[in-house]
Amino acid sequence: MRISELSAASGVPLPTVKYYLREGLLPAGERTARNQADYDGGHLARLRLIRALIEIGGLSIADTRAVLAASDDPELPLNEMMGAAHEAVTRRVAPNRGDPAWSDARALVVEMAEQRGWHIEPHGPALDQAADAVAAVLTADMPELHPLIDVYFDAVEPMAHREVEAVLSMGTADQVVRGVVIGTIVGESLLNALRLLAQQSVSIKLLDPDKLPR
Amino acid sequence: MRISELSAASGVPLPTVKYYLREGLLPAGERTARNQADYDGGHLARLRLIRALIEIGGLSIADTRAVLAASDDPELPLNEMMGAAHEAVTRRVAPNRGDPAWSDARALVVEMAEQRGWHIEPHGPALDQAADAVAAVLTADMPELHPLIDVYFDAVEPMAHREVEAVLSMGTADQVVRGVVIGTIVGESLLNALRLLAQQSVSIKLLDPDKLPR
Repeated sequence: MRISELSAASGVPLPTVKYYLREGLLPAGERTARNQADYDGGHLARLRLIRALIEIGGLSIADTRAVLAASDDPELPLNEMMGAAHEAVTRRVAPNRGDPAWSDARALVVEMAEQRGWHIEPHGPALDQAADAVAAVLTADMPELHPLIDVYFDAVEPMAHREVEAVLSMGTADQVVRGVVIGTIVGESLLNALRLLAQQSVSIKLLDPDKLPR
Repeated sequence: MRISELSAASGVPLPTVKYYLREGLLPAGERTARNQADYDGGHLARLRLIRALIEIGGLSIADTRAVLAASDDPELPLNEMMGAAHEAVTRRVAPNRGDPAWSDARALVVEMAEQRGWHIEPHGPALDQAADAVAAVLTADMPELHPLIDVYFDAVEPMAHREVEAVLSMGTADQVVRGVVIGTIVGESLLNALRLLAQQSVSIKLLDPDKLPR
């Protein structure tokens, strides 16, 4: 197909497609005339992946390029490819390494994960983010909230099994990477929204039983 | 304590403490000399709450002010106060009301919630956010991810019971609001980080069993 057809099929505006070509995110089509090139289904799939990375994932062009490079490397084992995608979409936090409360929180997360037999990446941003949140819970002077750390640990374990299995069932490497990105970002948004809906429902039931649905 | 001691005890840089004072987020200390004021444990707790809202929750100064105002209003009934805190911390999405895929997704969320006997606020931002995420899942051409919608619904229900019970056990109204805010914002960040850690652990176990912890 021509570049205009690629644009129409993907819903990505033509100038944006050209921008991705210039940035090297999308490989050039096969040249068919002096000023014309031919694109195929592979280009369309690639364009959908780029869109997911940039528009839903909010990734920068540089991060997008890194994730695509990982998904293009035939030598990279599947778990390292997933790791690269995961890493790119994790929210970065500036860890308060100097703060003893932060170091204690980080040690607690590692300990609780090890008790559950989890394999933790010791230098990943997810661990920093978890330490940040645990430190906030522990320093907030609200002991009633402390048991929730266990509640979240317990909740995410079966969830992660279903998520990883779903993504791995998607087949080819670039589909898996796209699945990790969509699943991580969109799944997070969905999980957070449903958690709020459930909290509202429980609050109404506990505080205002008249509002229960008939 | 002096403002410099308040800064040291909270870990919030002095210029930032002064900024919160100017913005009216932190009440002024008791004046003890022409150019000096005294701060107490209440100021320290308030400063920690402000930090959690802004740094972990990513709230704007205006949203932070609104949440603090709700928590300071002794006349507001408890469930309305919880609602105000909840509302302020929910991520806003611009709903694609004109898009049939979005309307379908929203109807699906309402239907799945009603099947579970949830009481849904029909005009709350959490429902819009859930519809947005469900629409993205359903239009992503990845049927393998569809069962995860049910997985998230199932996961958040028992979690919400524990969360709301924990917050309600905190006693006084302003403690409950602080609990909702900290629990919602920090809890969300913690839940998301632990989900990523669990996904990494499951990925490594499924893809690279040699890396299992001894």
